Amino acid sequence: MLEEILKQVALGEMSAEEAKEQLATFENLGFAKVDHHRKKRQGSPEVIFGEGKTSTQIIDISRAMITKKEDILVTRVNKEKVEEIRRELPEFQYHEIANLLFMKNTKDTVSSKGYIAIVCAGTSDLAVAEEAALTAEAYGIEVRRFYDVGVAGIHRLFAHIDEIRQATVSVVIAGMEGALPSVVGGLVSHPIIAVPTSVGYGANFQGLSALLTMLNSCASGISVVNIDNGFGGAYNAVLIHRLANNSK
Amino acid sequence: MLEEILKQVALGEMSAEEAKEQLATFENLGFAKVDHHRKKRQGSPEVIFGEGKTSTQIIDISRAMITKKEDILVTRVNKEKVEEIRRELPEFQYHEIANLLFMKNTKDTVSSKGYIAIVCAGTSDLAVAEEAALTAEAYGIEVRRFYDVGVAGIHRLFAHIDEIRQATVSVVIAGMEGALPSVVGGLVSHPIIAVPTSVGYGANFQGLSALLTMLNSCASGISVVNIDNGFGGAYNAVLIHRLANNSK
Amino acid sequence: MLEEILKQVALGEMSAEEAKEQLATFENLGFAKVDHHRKKRQGSPEVIFGEGKTSTQIIDISRAMITKKEDILVTRVNKEKVEEIRRELPEFQYHEIANLLFMKNTKDTVSSKGYIAIVCAGTSDLAVAEEAALTAEAYGIEVRRFYDVGVAGIHRLFAHIDEIRQATVSVVIAGMEGALPSVVGGLVSHPIIAVPTSVGYGANFQGLSALLTMLNSCASGISVVNIDNGFGGAYNAVLIHRLANNSK
Amino acid sequence: MLEEILKQVALGEMSAEEAKEQLATFENLGFAKVDHHRKKRQGSPEVIFGEGKTSTQIIDISRAMITKKEDILVTRVNKEKVEEIRRELPEFQYHEIANLLFMKNTKDTVSSKGYIAIVCAGTSDLAVAEEAALTAEAYGIEVRRFYDVGVAGIHRLFAHIDEIRQATVSVVIAGMEGALPSVVGGLVSHPIIAVPTSVGYGANFQGLSALLTMLNSCASGISVVNIDNGFGGAYNAVLIHRLANNSK
Amino acid sequence: MLEEILKQVALGEMSAEEAKEQLATFENLGFAKVDHHRKKRQGSPEVIFGEGKTSTQIIDISRAMITKKEDILVTRVNKEKVEEIRRELPEFQYHEIANLLFMKNTKDTVSSKGYIAIVCAGTSDLAVAEEAALTAEAYGIEVRRFYDVGVAGIHRLFAHIDEIRQATVSVVIAGMEGALPSVVGGLVSHPIIAVPTSVGYGANFQGLSALLTMLNSCASGISVVNIDNGFGGAYNAVLIHRLANNSK
Amino acid sequence: MLEEILKQVALGEMSAEEAKEQLATFENLGFAKVDHHRKKRQGSPEVIFGEGKTSTQIIDISRAMITKKEDILVTRVNKEKVEEIRRELPEFQYHEIANLLFMKNTKDTVSSKGYIAIVCAGTSDLAVAEEAALTAEAYGIEVRRFYDVGVAGIHRLFAHIDEIRQATVSVVIAGMEGALPSVVGGLVSHPIIAVPTSVGYGANFQGLSALLTMLNSCASGISVVNIDNGFGGAYNAVLIHRLANNSK
Amino acid sequence: MLEEILKQVALGEMSAEEAKEQLATFENLGFAKVDHHRKKRQGSPEVIFGEGKTSTQIIDISRAMITKKEDILVTRVNKEKVEEIRRELPEFQYHEIANLLFMKNTKDTVSSKGYIAIVCAGTSDLAVAEEAALTAEAYGIEVRRFYDVGVAGIHRLFAHIDEIRQATVSVVIAGMEGALPSVVGGLVSHPIIAVPTSVGYGANFQGLSALLTMLNSCASGISVVNIDNGFGGAYNAVLIHRLANNSK
Amino acid sequence: MLEEILKQVALGEMSAEEAKEQLATFENLGFAKVDHHRKKRQGSPEVIFGEGKTSTQIIDISRAMITKKEDILVTRVNKEKVEEIRRELPEFQYHEIANLLFMKNTKDTVSSKGYIAIVCAGTSDLAVAEEAALTAEAYGIEVRRFYDVGVAGIHRLFAHIDEIRQATVSVVIAGMEGALPSVVGGLVSHPIIAVPTSVGYGANFQGLSALLTMLNSCASGISVVNIDNGFGGAYNAVLIHRLANNSK
Repeated sequence: MLEEILKQVALGEMSAEEAKEQLATFENLGFAKVDHHRKKRQGSPEVIFGEGKTSTQIIDISRAMITKKEDILVTRVNKEKVEEIRRELPEFQYHEIANLLFMKNTKDTVSSKGYIAIVCAGTSDLAVAEEAALTAEAYGIEVRRFYDVGVAGIHRLFAHIDEIRQATVSVVIAGMEGALPSVVGGLVSHPIIAVPTSVGYGANFQGLSALLTMLNSCASGISVVNIDNGFGGAYNAVLIHRLANNSK
Repeated sequence: MLEEILKQVALGEMSAEEAKEQLATFENLGFAKVDHHRKKRQGSPEVIFGEGKTSTQIIDISRAMITKKEDILVTRVNKEKVEEIRRELPEFQYHEIANLLFMKNTKDTVSSKGYIAIVCAGTSDLAVAEEAALTAEAYGIEVRRFYDVGVAGIHRLFAHIDEIRQATVSVVIAGMEGALPSVVGGLVSHPIIAVPTSVGYGANFQGLSALLTMLNSCASGISVVNIDNGFGGAYNAVLIHRLANNSK
Repeated sequence: MLEEILKQVALGEMSAEEAKEQLATFENLGFAKVDHHRKKRQGSPEVIFGEGKTSTQIIDISRAMITKKEDILVTRVNKEKVEEIRRELPEFQYHEIANLLFMKNTKDTVSSKGYIAIVCAGTSDLAVAEEAALTAEAYGIEVRRFYDVGVAGIHRLFAHIDEIRQATVSVVIAGMEGALPSVVGGLVSHPIIAVPTSVGYGANFQGLSALLTMLNSCASGISVVNIDNGFGGAYNAVLIHRLANNSK
Repeated sequence: MLEEILKQVALGEMSAEEAKEQLATFENLGFAKVDHHRKKRQGSPEVIFGEGKTSTQIIDISRAMITKKEDILVTRVNKEKVEEIRRELPEFQYHEIANLLFMKNTKDTVSSKGYIAIVCAGTSDLAVAEEAALTAEAYGIEVRRFYDVGVAGIHRLFAHIDEIRQATVSVVIAGMEGALPSVVGGLVSHPIIAVPTSVGYGANFQGLSALLTMLNSCASGISVVNIDNGFGGAYNAVLIHRLANNSK
Repeated sequence: MLEEILKQVALGEMSAEEAKEQLATFENLGFAKVDHHRKKRQGSPEVIFGEGKTSTQIIDISRAMITKKEDILVTRVNKEKVEEIRRELPEFQYHEIANLLFMKNTKDTVSSKGYIAIVCAGTSDLAVAEEAALTAEAYGIEVRRFYDVGVAGIHRLFAHIDEIRQATVSVVIAGMEGALPSVVGGLVSHPIIAVPTSVGYGANFQGLSALLTMLNSCASGISVVNIDNGFGGAYNAVLIHRLANNSK
Repeated sequence: MLEEILKQVALGEMSAEEAKEQLATFENLGFAKVDHHRKKRQGSPEVIFGEGKTSTQIIDISRAMITKKEDILVTRVNKEKVEEIRRELPEFQYHEIANLLFMKNTKDTVSSKGYIAIVCAGTSDLAVAEEAALTAEAYGIEVRRFYDVGVAGIHRLFAHIDEIRQATVSVVIAGMEGALPSVVGGLVSHPIIAVPTSVGYGANFQGLSALLTMLNSCASGISVVNIDNGFGGAYNAVLIHRLANNSK
Repeated sequence: MLEEILKQVALGEMSAEEAKEQLATFENLGFAKVDHHRKKRQGSPEVIFGEGKTSTQIIDISRAMITKKEDILVTRVNKEKVEEIRRELPEFQYHEIANLLFMKNTKDTVSSKGYIAIVCAGTSDLAVAEEAALTAEAYGIEVRRFYDVGVAGIHRLFAHIDEIRQATVSVVIAGMEGALPSVVGGLVSHPIIAVPTSVGYGANFQGLSALLTMLNSCASGISVVNIDNGFGGAYNAVLIHRLANNSK
Repeated sequence: MLEEILKQVALGEMSAEEAKEQLATFENLGFAKVDHHRKKRQGSPEVIFGEGKTSTQIIDISRAMITKKEDILVTRVNKEKVEEIRRELPEFQYHEIANLLFMKNTKDTVSSKGYIAIVCAGTSDLAVAEEAALTAEAYGIEVRRFYDVGVAGIHRLFAHIDEIRQATVSVVIAGMEGALPSVVGGLVSHPIIAVPTSVGYGANFQGLSALLTMLNSCASGISVVNIDNGFGGAYNAVLIHRLANNSK
């Protein structure tokens, strides 16, 4: 950012006044520098990773963004924080199963062709799957959910495979042995973002087993994000979906 | 595949004769079932993972594919195998640095808009970077190489950042601490496929360090493939690039 | 063994003379105590684990068993050892792909109903698969091989699933992500012995990935043996197959 | 399943009407697809893995199964959930030590010959041992319990070894160093399913030590399931026991 | 210490009386030997590592030091302990965010040239960053804080890089992927002490990911302390800063 | 045990009556087989590992032993259990810091020459150190405690080294980096039992760091027990001390 | 670098011509961008990490640096590479024990006060110790070597402790249990850079044991670099030593 | 050592002359300080750990010891080194299976009562077992070997258990699952030193499995040394055996 501004100064495309103003947008909240340029640079509303932040910190960051009229997505907030935050900012919509808050401050209605498939192995993976699904919807993209289609009863997957095939991109979520992305990967021709979950016990080692399975998949076209990172899985899918819609 | 054929049989859209013929395409080579349907299903030539296969096995599989007039990409072949294979099949082009063989049997010249950026941290990551670059080129897509732009001398990266930004998708390859994808991820707005390499020593643990770094990246829009998996990184990028070109 | 003999002594069912003789069967070869009782106790010929033993040790142990007219199976022998051993004991049959020696000294022809299915994900897993198949055959049981039916091209598996279903028990072998046993486990109703292999690279960690996948399988009816332990997988299957034949 | 139905359609062995009806059995509960075919396919009542499911989810799934007159086994339910579930479904029997609920809805009384031995190293492994024992009993099979016969006082094991030997199959459960299956494996000739438990501390690493011990056992005829997976251990034993009874 | 005193005795440079007195300074508090020599030997006030010590133990150790007029720094104390300790010793200043108590008993005002830079990746790393900053200040050294300048938005770092460059030494703190020290290391020419934090989730493995990243940094001039060890990071920086001020 | 009795039966040295009686000593408490032979076989009172046992189980086992007039040591009991147990068995002495109960039912006063040194690195290791010290005292052996003599202030260790040298055997306990046994091992000539503790944080990994340090010690004469296993460390020392006293 | 140049352009302190020239210094060698600015930015000659680079690559990079009259240090070169390189560039001095090449092209004779102590546990750590010592000497700084002073014979360390104490900074190298830095850290008051080595076997896990020990050291003032990273240890010490000499 | 000498100086019990002479015994060989005091301090001949030392280094250290008339034990020497060493020092006796050299320079014939039992699981553990046995014999102590008595055929162990019971101390060596020490520990009442070996494959992880098994043993009286450390196991046993013989 900085060097681009300076380049424009050097080339006479930007005045010193303008440069100064642009640089002033780093509002110093004391503990976090909210980056209002980011939306343009990365094409998305600000996302607040709620874990490890206090309610007060989340409220302060949110207020700075409301002023700038940006959509806000807060992930990984537990019930207690939600209550404290919504007392101050009741405009936030709460999605309990996904531990997620969303507030729409823009009037953007991105109309895109096609949909993202959210495919999920077991009932126990719902929290991560919903974090992914709601994230993609927050970015204005249609989502279709295919839940409980794990490999141990593979006929359930086949009942839906044609609809999954027609998605632009799939986010495939699985805990325990994490084999679902490999199987889906052998049946579709679009990119798959695999999300391992920490669901399981014993030699699952908090999701390590599913993570390794996905990284070692012998099906091509699969890439992986961190354990339980439903948001990250969806965010990658959103970027790809936009490319497919030429709406970069 | 199987169940689709049967569905058509059930719906009377396919005769028993045709179905029989289609199913006959699983040629039984004794040790491997070459899948000639795959190209259509996945939109790509057959790729042979050379590691763990003998020269004879690679030659036999290749011949079956030559008959069907398919492009062939063989990854992870060492020099000895290459010599034995090319004695029989001299049409194979050998790319030494990437341990890769390629043979063009189609006349397909996919003309796509835009390019894939292959970004690489250090000189020592060249083998993996070239495996990625040559794979993408084998799929008929333009590639631009940005090598030796690691984070320890970040000004080198900045010298090229604008050109990287204009790619459809980046494959970012790094060993040692593996921080490059995080930095690139904060500067571009397209999807990034991160490839950790086993380059390094000591607490690097054969690429584990770089792998964990990439999975934990605090930049969004990054997904990860297996350690040293240059092919996989490129294959994901190819799928995304095609989506961006509406050439699904 | 010991205490059973003593019990019989106590109960007067065995004379001191007999007991002495029975106990004399522990021939002391200086470095290994060959157990001629084991066949009866465990219902099988002696198996020599070749790794870590010298050719001379293997020859000496074999000779002790030949005297007792027992079948001999030697696993994990490399080419050099094989040559040295067969120079002395040319009766040994060598199976190169499985690194295995077998010598038939009994006239036993166990005729059992049914067969064991050996199911294998990729061409690269052949060594382990053949170790399993030849082991089961050494025990006189029919084996059917289903090779290269990995999950990335799941229709290949479906082409054979009915024949796999009719086996008494399956030994399912897979490297890389190791997802095959989960998929097979969801489609058959007999017990599955899963054998992870060290085939793969990077985050495969010499078979750890496949091992964890199999232990965490969400399909029931799957139990697991050590990485690359084709013999062990088959041995378990043999015990189960015999139970099914009432030939305990 | 799907493709079998279709095959029959193709062969004229099943009418479109029948096929439709069969496929209608996937009742969509919104969050989980209860599979009523499974009993036939796998020869067992539905098992609900309670961990990670809410009481409400368990109740809803159970009700769907009650309608179909199936036996129901719920594993890994804590006290709170049990109270909530039994308030709605008091027909569930609760086994506290094993954290397990069972409801008999069929009149099946499988009468099988022989018994399964549940062998257990220490008092602290009781929860897992009982999960295994009650699972096998839920499948209508006789169980004999051999508890607290760990290797540190091996004479206790010998006092029972003859009775263990006469079982069809043993489930051997051990925490800490997990050596018990190796010792039992050297003394019996039937298959052993080994279940590591997370009992222990320090370098036990939540059951990893026992798991590795069992996978590396130098006794043959031992296969392993996940840490603390009493259900899985028993389920494998049930499949084997049925084979031995020709009641597949 | 001991042998130095004895050397002086041997050389007649110290009388037996003096030696006796010096050795008497090991006051035996029953559970811990407070070392009043340490300040001189290591040039610093006593630091009490609060974790694993009871309030009573901390109070007793503190009192022994107050008598000797030493500054006291207590790290890693939770709120409950703080209340109990301050009831007895209200002179302690409490820094909540850093879980730290400090009491000034000397009149030392170390006046040093220059400052230490405390650089921090995310809002979630504040606790460790403040532990570091307050530790350095307790040693009388000026600190400048550069918080929330993580690599995902690298322009934020550039806005401050000149001021960071002019520090004597930097303590760079980062969780998640831990890439910040590598980037800073490529831009400054003074020593960097890197502190990984346990902030993150999934494949972060409680800070292991950040730790490995830092150890494998391809930038030179970076050394690493234990995960979450803000005190240790600062203490190393203090020693270096003093050297730069010739105040050894 | 069993086979010895039988041997005597076989040799006519024991009547069937006596054998029966001897074998009757395995009282079946339903959940645990208390072994009254063990004291003679292993020369020690029964030790109950309290973790994972309920108060009721501990009480029942204890009562069986009281009847046989044996000393009882219960390790790893938390406060709640202690209260419940002492309500029933107030004769138990409680050592809070070591989480240990002891009851003397014999009049044995083993008078041995010499003492065991319990050497301990930091205040935070006290719980494990006291578990060791009290265990050895329960076996009637003199113990000398050398606490807080960690390697970071090595002069403290030297102040006591002569007294440590004169012990028969040392139990050396250390957390964090676990270097103390190596240093002591270079200064004494008797055997050292090293006990790693889980004290520390971050890259300590719950004692793994200290454990590895001790196993890799370059000083000879050091052997290691499990993390936090104060009892085990002391028990080994007791066996060695007895040998030194010819009281085997 | 880039943005600083641009800043000067913006401020009119640098002409476009000059900027162009400065930016031209990134000579594109095809595979690596040699950074001639680095010396000024980081105050040191270029260091070539030899591992993973071919002789030809090393020669080409070296030649580019010779032109610029820079000192060159090549680390981690094996004998074969050394011969090939010196055939072309005989000016390189080879230090066999440290696997290191050095060429002096400047006339710089940095004269600094004081020395760096290189302290080393065992004979087997010599390679890493010499890599460290020669690196520091290449930077023109006096080095004193204290080899074979491991903790198992701690009196050897004491014989030299006073001379170690008077160094500006110590680089302490140790394999096996890695306890030496902790002991030295308790005896000196200057900063210590700890270098774990991969010397050892078994539970050493290629240096992991020593690495963890050093990270968990309870002595303050110790920071750690990667396993076997003698260069990195020395480089950190050089930066600190320069600060102490005000020669930043 | 140092401080003891000084203490005597201070107390007038030693003249400056004598002190000087004593201190002169640290002969500086340039690379290693041979400690001639060690024998008295630790009661044993010098042991040279051969791994990582060159033949020349071993020869030089040996010569320094020959001058002092000490017995010399060299462990972990491969065949090449042995040839080079014996060319110079033919007095060395070579034990091939244990990779060990021994030279007797004293006339000491320690006559001790009793023997040490070396107990070994499998034929493949012979190298480590012989390293242990020969070490103990080098210390002049009688050894009895019990080889190939692994737990998979536990009756073999029982055939020898009485003779094992009568040893002063046992060294129990096992690879694979490492269960043997637990079983022996339940049958004898003397101390056991357990030595894990790296024999095995797959989930054995180079001896980690056996190591963890031994550390977690539920039998008391077992302590553990590093993987493959036959020397260390024997050395601990020697110290204990001497205590039992009052020959400290």
